[in-house]
Amino acid sequence: MFIGIDIGGTNIKGVLTNKGGEIFSSASIPTGKTADDIENGIVSLIDVMTDSKSLPKRSIKALGIGAAGAVDCKKGVIITSPNIRAWENYPLANRIERRVGIRVFLENDATVAVIGEWWMGQGRKYRNWIMLTLGTGVGGGAVIDNKLYTGQSGSSMEFGHMTIDYKGRKCKCGNIGCLEQYASASAIVNSARIALKKDRTSSIHKKIESDEARKGDTLAVKLVEEMSYFLGIGVANLVNIFNPEAVILGGGLSRDHRIIIPVVRRVVNERALPGLKDNVKYLAIKNEDKAPALGAAKIAMDSLQHF
Amino acid sequence: MFIGIDIGGTNIKGVLTNKGGEIFSSASIPTGKTADDIENGIVSLIDVMTDSKSLPKRSIKALGIGAAGAVDCKKGVIITSPNIRAWENYPLANRIERRVGIRVFLENDATVAVIGEWWMGQGRKYRNWIMLTLGTGVGGGAVIDNKLYTGQSGSSMEFGHMTIDYKGRKCKCGNIGCLEQYASASAIVNSARIALKKDRTSSIHKKIESDEARKGDTLAVKLVEEMSYFLGIGVANLVNIFNPEAVILGGGLSRDHRIIIPVVRRVVNERALPGLKDNVKYLAIKNEDKAPALGAAKIAMDSLQHF
Repeated sequence: MFIGIDIGGTNIKGVLTNKGGEIFSSASIPTGKTADDIENGIVSLIDVMTDSKSLPKRSIKALGIGAAGAVDCKKGVIITSPNIRAWENYPLANRIERRVGIRVFLENDATVAVIGEWWMGQGRKYRNWIMLTLGTGVGGGAVIDNKLYTGQSGSSMEFGHMTIDYKGRKCKCGNIGCLEQYASASAIVNSARIALKKDRTSSIHKKIESDEARKGDTLAVKLVEEMSYFLGIGVANLVNIFNPEAVILGGGLSRDHRIIIPVVRRVVNERALPGLKDNVKYLAIKNEDKAPALGAAKIAMDSLQHF
Repeated sequence: MFIGIDIGGTNIKGVLTNKGGEIFSSASIPTGKTADDIENGIVSLIDVMTDSKSLPKRSIKALGIGAAGAVDCKKGVIITSPNIRAWENYPLANRIERRVGIRVFLENDATVAVIGEWWMGQGRKYRNWIMLTLGTGVGGGAVIDNKLYTGQSGSSMEFGHMTIDYKGRKCKCGNIGCLEQYASASAIVNSARIALKKDRTSSIHKKIESDEARKGDTLAVKLVEEMSYFLGIGVANLVNIFNPEAVILGGGLSRDHRIIIPVVRRVVNERALPGLKDNVKYLAIKNEDKAPALGAAKIAMDSLQHF
């Protein structure tokens, strides 16, 4: 048995699975704000899932964790994280390992989402595909010729920091005009703040989150469509570069895929080249709730074989 | 023996080579304007090179041709070409084959440049690298894990049509703000036209070409630097996506690499992410004059084995 943990901006999610990807137990807990909160959260998730199946911890062969930020996978260290300030050269894998007595492997959160979708989701059907994870930021990854591409240093692909407007909005990464300044949950919240100054009748005023789009709130739908337009520009670039069989959207925002995908498809058709854009499928991640945690478990399984 | 032909915007270049990549003969001829001009040019290049070594044509096992535009490699057909209007669904491989009695294989011009550099140039040293070919337009390709990546349809990577300014300059491809509108020979010529209206003292007034930069013409250097700034924005995007070991510049403009590379390196360092930009080497193609034709010959060699 293996456990996979996905540390998201809002919730930490866990799955208990086997080599066949069957899910025996799953659980979720709010992320919390401090490094200690998160560590306690992870430990209690592991307890909940093993207890529910009356499993002793030693029956868990390995634990995989996906975390946002720059990650040194070999050392199990979080180099920097956009969300948790205390996570600077933070040996998360080691710390959890000591608390639960299970071997821990750490990976970037976009990478675990790609691996999860590749293993048990839509990615199974394609040899060449890309994923964009739409959350607070925009991450991603590419499976090329049936292999996860990780570059020379093993990092995931940073699609969110692609410049789409070289004299545009400033990004906290230091660059100007990054896609994630236009096509992420944060971008929607920023646009909402601006829009709400003009429009005080919207229900979004009460609570800004993408759930609102599903409730048919006019402004929220408009904002998701606007962000989809910018996402389409980024995806058109990636279609011209990768000529993939499929573009799969993951991350929390992908739950609004019924709004997002038609806009993205239209913008790509307007902007990308014939021949490259012709046979691309646009899909949302199959199981947004569990795919990243499953991917983290899969990484733990595979990594264990190298030791 | 094999022959490789590279059809450029200005010249058609040919090399006579063997499986070891030794060049026994090379020749060059102006491209001409019509489809007939080009075909006659290719045939006379073949004649010149075989005659110079007193080789009968039947000793040439195969001929590879690199041409700008969308190419159907399997059929040997040019689908569309930016330079030659008559080349629309044009069976170039077949036509040349009938005239010279040698098996012909057709490829995209950026792809032959990548293959040439990979086979006999700087690309030999790296497993993960990208090339940008800087000519009238901007093409490119990526070698990923020691394999040329060609996408689902076998097309090369269209780095030139990456949007860097979504509300910027119109591109003839239909998109807005494509890199090649800012970072190509055509972009320099356009900027020069605008600049010359203001500055009538420059020697560039006489003749606009990148040779001028080497002569130290102030305006020309300024224009090449300006185009390098935009190129840097595009390269920063690609560094964030591919995290390559090396970025190699090819195409006619790459002869100005002493001006271009320092600017590109600076812009990438300003814009790309730490961890991804840290160990990237910036190089110019080793033999800009012959690498693409060599690559075309290599493609012919390799393709022959599949028949």
